This record gives sequence, structure tokens and C-alpha cells, in this order.
Amino acid sequence: MKKINVVEKVLKANDTIAQENRRRMTVAGYLAINLMSAPGSGKTTLLEKTLPVLAPEYESVVLVGDLQTTRDAERLGDLAAEVTQINTGRGCHLEAQQVAEALNGLKLERGGFLFIENVGNMVCPAAFDLGEHLRVVLLSVPEGDDKVAKYPTLFQGADAILLTKVDLRGVLDFDMARVRDDLARINTRARLLEISSRSGDGMNQWFDWLREQHASRTAAGG
Amino acid sequence: MKKINVVEKVLKANDTIAQENRRRMTVAGYLAINLMSAPGSGKTTLLEKTLPVLAPEYESVVLVGDLQTTRDAERLGDLAAEVTQINTGRGCHLEAQQVAEALNGLKLERGGFLFIENVGNMVCPAAFDLGEHLRVVLLSVPEGDDKVAKYPTLFQGADAILLTKVDLRGVLDFDMARVRDDLARINTRARLLEISSRSGDGMNQWFDWLREQHASRTAAGG
Repeated sequence: MKKINVVEKVLKANDTIAQENRRRMTVAGYLAINLMSAPGSGKTTLLEKTLPVLAPEYESVVLVGDLQTTRDAERLGDLAAEVTQINTGRGCHLEAQQVAEALNGLKLERGGFLFIENVGNMVCPAAFDLGEHLRVVLLSVPEGDDKVAKYPTLFQGADAILLTKVDLRGVLDFDMARVRDDLARINTRARLLEISSRSGDGMNQWFDWLREQHASRTAAGG
Repeated sequence: MKKINVVEKVLKANDTIAQENRRRMTVAGYLAINLMSAPGSGKTTLLEKTLPVLAPEYESVVLVGDLQTTRDAERLGDLAAEVTQINTGRGCHLEAQQVAEALNGLKLERGGFLFIENVGNMVCPAAFDLGEHLRVVLLSVPEGDDKVAKYPTLFQGADAILLTKVDLRGVLDFDMARVRDDLARINTRARLLEISSRSGDGMNQWFDWLREQHASRTAAGG
């Protein structure tokens, strides 16, 4: 019982900070997107392909969560206005306080997108609101078509679900109907997009979804 | 500070139970193997291919950890002497107590292998000894060649590292030298095997490694 109380207190403190993060970003005209997935689903590659396309229209700022290394931040360094690496050590997810501290070090003057690349993990990140406006969950074809049923909490909270690496569908068995069936039971609200950062398939739909969301959700506009 | 104390106490209690699990399995002549990886690296498929090969020589018992569903246990049901699904709910890893309870429900009379398929996660499972004799970590080619550096704790504790889905190396960029370099910094002890459950590449080396380990580590023999 005591253990549960501790966890609940941690989550409540986290949510209070998350609300303030969200308020700050809304006021500054940034649409904050929390990218979540298993390791290797393609979060960083997605951002590598997305940031240059958005650049003429929006400023993008990126926070990258990893246990160790600054590899992802280095990959994205030249593509965004600012990139901040958050190393969690042994932590399996980002927390709102870490995002709040990162925001303190950013200018956030021009409005645009704030992408938060969470730690690669299908369990822990789902429980922690970071102050994002939208949750985007990636599932790559090589991970298999059973993952929605096995990690429902992650997919339940998603505003968009990106099925990534769809260029590998010809090489690997992947039953899209199974994914749709599992999603129909837990989340009919999320936009489902089938994309490949490598082949470019579906990427324009992703960019358009970002533009639509930015237009409709930020007070300051694009 | 209090939070750290709670975590340490949990780990200490876990380790005491893990020691007892290990003792029980050693006495019964079972070599216990904790399989850990990100979701979708191929743990279940590996077992699907491994269990029939071992069957003429050893009894195999399997414990499967998942947040929800019994899908993996169903896939393995006909291939092992006994399969027990452990659903962790929102828990991102198995704990020794869950394994102890599962062991209570098993016969464990003939000796052989006990495979524990952990929850798909590259962070949390590494901190929890389940009472295994050996830790086997899977990394699939589609996850990318940067994962050893990004999740060092998992790879540090491995007795064997299986690079899986190597049949996709022709389709995807994957720098094996990078993986070897990263491993050389943190774990030079582990056996590194390159395998594909689909093509069969390297599988015989994996089976041989299991046989060697069984012969050398269980008191009761094979």
C-alpha cells in the first residue's frame, strides 16, 4: 500500500509540472509532441526527415531523452533551431520536471513545434504526462503485428499512431488487419498513418497532419 | 532520498528470492535462461525454433512475461513441457517473486532448460535478478546499431548477445563493427552470436552454446 502511495504522489507532482509546461508552450505558440515507441522504431529518423520539411514554415525545437549518449541529439543538431539531450541514467522514461528544466534553457520566441523524443520504451513513458499537446506512438513493421494488444496503455493514449518502416512489409509478415482490429478495441480516436522514412511513403500525410494540428491547437498560430 | 531507499529495499528483497529460485533450479537440474530485449526483437520466435530442437535431448519449461495477453504463451504452448504466462499489468519487467510463484506450479522433475521470456523492454528488466543462471540479450538488426551504447546496462550483464534477424542486413544499414566496438567497451565476456530464426543462419551455434552451458552449469547434467 505504501508503495502505491509513493507512486501516486510522484505522478501527481509530475502532472502539476506537466500542466505548467503545456501552458508555457501554448502561450509561446509551440505545439508540443511527445514521440513514444520501442527502441529502434524510427523516432530519430522520422525527425531527421521531418525537420527539414517543416523548417521553411515553422521553427522546431527538439528534446531528446536517452539513458546515455548524445547520439540522437548529434544526429538532429543541424536540423532544428535547438536540440537538448536529456540523459536519464537508468530512468526508463522522461518526466515533466526534466522537460521543465530543458524549457528554461530554450528561447521559445518564434512559435512552431517542440518535439520530445522519449526514451525508447513501450511501458514507462505512457504513465508520464510531459506537458505535450499530442502523443504520437510509433510501431515499426519489424516489431510485429501483436504489439497493440500487448502494450495497450501506450496505444490507448495516442493521438496519432505511425506504422513505420512499411517498406519492409514485402519482406516481413505483418498483418495490418490484426493491428486495426486491436486498435478498434482500445483507440478509435487516433489517426493511423502508414509511413516509411526511407521510401518516403505516407510522409506527406504525416507532414499535413502536423500542419493541421498546429493550426488548430496553438493560440499563436503557425 | 526516501525514494532511493524504497528502491534499494525492493531490489534487496528481490535478490533474496532470486537466490532461492536459482538454488531450486540448480538442484532440479534446470538451466534457467532470462531472455531480454526490446519488444519485437524475436524472443518468442527464437523459442519457437529452439524448443523443438532441444526436445529430444532436454525437457524445456517456459515462463513468459507480458503486460497483457497470453499470445506468446499460446504460440509456445505445444512446444514445451509446460508454459506459464505471467501478466505484469503495467509492470515493465518480471520480478523474482513472480518467478517463484510460477515455479511452485511446475513439476520440474526431469531436468533441462527453463526459459524465462522477460517483458519486452531494454531498461527495467536489467535491474531484476530472477534467479536465472544466464542472461541472454537479443538485439535485432532493424532496431539499429546504436543500441548497445544507448542501453549499456542491459548489455553489460549479458552472458550471450544474440544479434537477430541478420537476414535483414542486406536490406537495412547496420554497422556490425559499431556494435562490436561498443561491446568491447562494456562487455568482452559475453558470447556474440549472429542469427536469423527465419533463414536459420547461426542457429546451430546457438543450440550448441545452450548444450555447452547446460553441461557445464547444472549439477544434475543433461
